[in-house]
Amino acid sequence: MKLISLVVAISITTMTFGATLSQKAKEAGLIPIPSSKSAILKLIDNLENPITDAKIELGKKLYFDPRLSKSSLISCNTCHNLGAGGADGLSTAIGHKWQVNPHHLNSPTVYNAVFNTVQSWNGRNSDLEDQAQGPIQAKHVMAAPKKLVVQRITSIPAYVNEFKNVYGNDIKIDFKKIADTIAIYERTLITPSRFDTFLLGKETSLTQVEKDGLNTFIDLGCGSCHNGIGFGGTMQAFGITGKYKFSNVGDFKGDTNAMVKTPTLRNIEETAPYFHNGKIYSLKEAIKEMGRIQLGISINNKDATSIEMFLKTLTGKKPKLIYPILPPSTDKTAKPNVL
Amino acid sequence: MKLISLVVAISITTMTFGATLSQKAKEAGLIPIPSSKSAILKLIDNLENPITDAKIELGKKLYFDPRLSKSSLISCNTCHNLGAGGADGLSTAIGHKWQVNPHHLNSPTVYNAVFNTVQSWNGRNSDLEDQAQGPIQAKHVMAAPKKLVVQRITSIPAYVNEFKNVYGNDIKIDFKKIADTIAIYERTLITPSRFDTFLLGKETSLTQVEKDGLNTFIDLGCGSCHNGIGFGGTMQAFGITGKYKFSNVGDFKGDTNAMVKTPTLRNIEETAPYFHNGKIYSLKEAIKEMGRIQLGISINNKDATSIEMFLKTLTGKKPKLIYPILPPSTDKTAKPNVL
Repeated sequence: MKLISLVVAISITTMTFGATLSQKAKEAGLIPIPSSKSAILKLIDNLENPITDAKIELGKKLYFDPRLSKSSLISCNTCHNLGAGGADGLSTAIGHKWQVNPHHLNSPTVYNAVFNTVQSWNGRNSDLEDQAQGPIQAKHVMAAPKKLVVQRITSIPAYVNEFKNVYGNDIKIDFKKIADTIAIYERTLITPSRFDTFLLGKETSLTQVEKDGLNTFIDLGCGSCHNGIGFGGTMQAFGITGKYKFSNVGDFKGDTNAMVKTPTLRNIEETAPYFHNGKIYSLKEAIKEMGRIQLGISINNKDATSIEMFLKTLTGKKPKLIYPILPPSTDKTAKPNVL
Repeated sequence: MKLISLVVAISITTMTFGATLSQKAKEAGLIPIPSSKSAILKLIDNLENPITDAKIELGKKLYFDPRLSKSSLISCNTCHNLGAGGADGLSTAIGHKWQVNPHHLNSPTVYNAVFNTVQSWNGRNSDLEDQAQGPIQAKHVMAAPKKLVVQRITSIPAYVNEFKNVYGNDIKIDFKKIADTIAIYERTLITPSRFDTFLLGKETSLTQVEKDGLNTFIDLGCGSCHNGIGFGGTMQAFGITGKYKFSNVGDFKGDTNAMVKTPTLRNIEETAPYFHNGKIYSLKEAIKEMGRIQLGISINNKDATSIEMFLKTLTGKKPKLIYPILPPSTDKTAKPNVL
């Protein structure tokens, strides 16, 4: 009888505490990925170019097709590797001819990028459709002029047919349409995690240690920038209370107002190294650095560990991905050019 | 009645012709990929390290893991892209720091490589296990010393656990075991095609035009080198009756006897450009060049087209591949090094 009372008491305590915490998390601006497909679709869809299964399939092929690069060796997936947290694990992006990103910028993850309010570190791209056009053309990334990309795709009958199936027989396959189709695929790359289940009401989805971490995350103010569905993705001032330790690496200074896109914390465990220049590999160190330069506090080891434990609950389930078989080039397809 | 007789007569003719042709093909040394799983396993298995599902899964992860390269940017799949016929579509392989293969050698396909009697263009590797060790270490490919590869893998607990699950708790994860596990995955990369169905008895698997092409292929003598299950994969003299058009590209001269590994013709439609130095992109041109330098004949356009039609029946069904989610690095994992 005594034991049962104790169990009941603990359960009630836990539930009450859990409910309070998830309520607190919501009040701090943390938003779950919904559980229903229709609610998700509403969040990720592009009204001008609605998501369809056929479009996703075509976009996936293009995402993985290295012929979208001048060399024919680099695909979107090279730097945004869907098996590696949607990024490349490098400090600085490496592209065509092994060029290092001229601003020493790190490749951000493509997973959940649809939830960002803007794209790219300086927020120059309004959405994924806009962003997808950039790296394909950039000389230090894929280095492929629009004309070359269109030539390669339209020289491959299987691609032409697939575009027709997706968009209708009158479709004009231009560079924008190719980028738009890649973006449709990218929109679907979302990764619900245990934290979403927790926020949606299942209190037992997080352990007590993880709940403590969440509590600390909120109390210290991390959620003032890392909020929303993406736990980031908005433009924020960087280095508010202290100078970033590696501010001398690269010439990146943010947008015209010195604002920097806050990276998502979803799958953060898988996307080291951290910060725009990828100079910090340790998640715990990154947490402490954020405390120092954004919050003006010294986060002790215990709290950093606790927050880290919580952040690992944001490692999400990746969409099942059947590796695409790409249609073969033809004699007319512009040859790879590695120079 | 008359019509029925005619249909019967045509059927018998076709069957007789088909049976004769498939018999002729077998006599010319062409061997189908068997249809039964157990027969296939017998052909592809490694008796010292037998294929298991768990081993395939681990091997697949390693095959796709760019952390096996010094830079952490190049995986086996970079040059042997399973979405692109198992090769890279480039004339010459490009590796670490964008280095061109010093001998101007083309990346051969990994699909059906298990059927090769030897591996690599000069046949220096006895099997896939042996071959897998080469490019990982080669300075112009993945540039990763054995020690670095072992450090990266053993620094990742999920990998260590998976090796234990696959090989038992006493497993010593060394470089050889890592390469052996990759090779196990590669052994399973076989692609049965319509031609196999034909050779196994279903005469209607090939069209008349394709049968004509097969007939020409055999009559001209192509099968004297391109035979066996792999339609190639043995060491043969190169340039028997004429000098190869691009013999001045690269310093490759074959093995010590000037023999060169005959590439497989399976999926040849997907693996342009052709020859050890990848200088010919057109399949028809490659067929004609082979006639000139290996058979001492001029293959006319009609015959080359016909053979090409037949060769396209060797484009096989790829194993369904669920893209692997790689376990994240830890603070202990040796950092990427792009220099």
